[in-house]
Amino acid sequence: MIRGCRMKVGYLGPKGTFSEEAVFKYIEGMKECEAIEFATIQDVVKSVAEGTCDEGILPVENSIEGSVNVSLDLLINDAEGILVRGEVIISISQCLICDDFIDFKDVHCILSHPQALAQCREYILNNFPTAEVKTTESTVKALLGVNAKKGIVAIGPERAAWLYNLKILEKDVQDIKENYTRFLVIAKRDSDYTGEDKTSIVFSVPNVPGSLYRALGVFAEKNINMTKIESRPSRKKFGEYVFWVDIEGHRKEERIKEALEDLKIKADFLKVIGSYPKFKMGK
Amino acid sequence: MIRGCRMKVGYLGPKGTFSEEAVFKYIEGMKECEAIEFATIQDVVKSVAEGTCDEGILPVENSIEGSVNVSLDLLINDAEGILVRGEVIISISQCLICDDFIDFKDVHCILSHPQALAQCREYILNNFPTAEVKTTESTVKALLGVNAKKGIVAIGPERAAWLYNLKILEKDVQDIKENYTRFLVIAKRDSDYTGEDKTSIVFSVPNVPGSLYRALGVFAEKNINMTKIESRPSRKKFGEYVFWVDIEGHRKEERIKEALEDLKIKADFLKVIGSYPKFKMGK
Repeated sequence: MIRGCRMKVGYLGPKGTFSEEAVFKYIEGMKECEAIEFATIQDVVKSVAEGTCDEGILPVENSIEGSVNVSLDLLINDAEGILVRGEVIISISQCLICDDFIDFKDVHCILSHPQALAQCREYILNNFPTAEVKTTESTVKALLGVNAKKGIVAIGPERAAWLYNLKILEKDVQDIKENYTRFLVIAKRDSDYTGEDKTSIVFSVPNVPGSLYRALGVFAEKNINMTKIESRPSRKKFGEYVFWVDIEGHRKEERIKEALEDLKIKADFLKVIGSYPKFKMGK
Repeated sequence: MIRGCRMKVGYLGPKGTFSEEAVFKYIEGMKECEAIEFATIQDVVKSVAEGTCDEGILPVENSIEGSVNVSLDLLINDAEGILVRGEVIISISQCLICDDFIDFKDVHCILSHPQALAQCREYILNNFPTAEVKTTESTVKALLGVNAKKGIVAIGPERAAWLYNLKILEKDVQDIKENYTRFLVIAKRDSDYTGEDKTSIVFSVPNVPGSLYRALGVFAEKNINMTKIESRPSRKKFGEYVFWVDIEGHRKEERIKEALEDLKIKADFLKVIGSYPKFKMGK
């Protein structure tokens, strides 16, 4: 730990975002922890790389919108020496928020972060077909722009509405009610074996027919379950990909070790991003 | 064709976007074509579904940022009866634009669409470390907000700068110079066999170890090349995916037909999104 006894965990601010909620869920029950807010996901990673924070929390995947590309790309391409040591999953409830109660027919403009707007596409089309939709850098920034007199409302987290003393016009306005976001905890080391672990890896395969198939075979052979697979552009050639894969098991387990050794031979490139305990949803 | 002799192609406007550029590239050499602008990608799909446009063009993939989720998700989940009948790839050059020339040290604010900003992350950090970065709904909307006197510049396409009579301060400001975006052409039918085709499919597999591996085996066995694989959340259960795969070949070719028949048995769900001629980059 850095500077005395408090562990510092960086997250994408401002206060009231789902990222802050994830930090609270993560540090629940831990003694002497402090949540430090940053303006961008890049800054969270940098704070861990430079040691101003011990750990950081990055959003990586939403159950509706899919991967958060900037987080994956940072861990794939840029975050030298940074490993994943945990995951946190929180359920997401988007709310329609304003500074005062307002008739739906008087709403002229809806503000929110693009990902939140995407989660509420149908709701907006059905309830506010003529309203202008404007994007903001975060859901919390959207809340700061609401104005019932001018007909401007926002979509964002319930917690932030309370924090900024605003009114919740409607809860759970996202189109698909079951909505989760998964966060990864980063640090300079990953976690020890617990018996219920996951491992995140990144690899690329030669650009020939069947190469991805053969690469995934190393896990199928050993009955290792994949819980995520995501392709990201290689940034080298159009149509070439790097694959992010999460598997069940710890990199120190014998069968995982063997599978990763096999994969190394079949892949052009392989990076183990870290092993960490599976998040328990009831937590 | 609809209402007389002109073919109508819908795209995500306003004029000057890379989508409009893709339409021009697509209709090059065709007689009697008209590009119709829409406010959202959803509206483009709707115009084809409802028959007000014969075809539509959707951005689906950028070589740096990866897939355009909203386009993929519409084609996977919502666009009943819509098929892909073509692809267009254009090279992307982002420019720094203002209404007048301005010293870099006087720039206080940079406007652009989140995807364009993501493509220029490093450039902005290196050249404008203290400038405020603001997101807009399109690169063209960003251009309408520039103001040299107030120190507000934008990042967007060269063509749009000419269209709106603005100054280009610097060209090719994206971090990775080789930068392409791929568009798909949608309609109510796909294309005939040409001998150099691609086919887009979407499928899901049972949630057991090795199921994706076995599904991809149908292509590996027949030496069918995959040119894209992308996982999207199933929208049913967290951690369950639908896979978008592009393969080389036409769905009417015997070996493709057989592979898709095999896949149908291994998959929970399979949808063929269409076969279409491969885009030739020199076009």
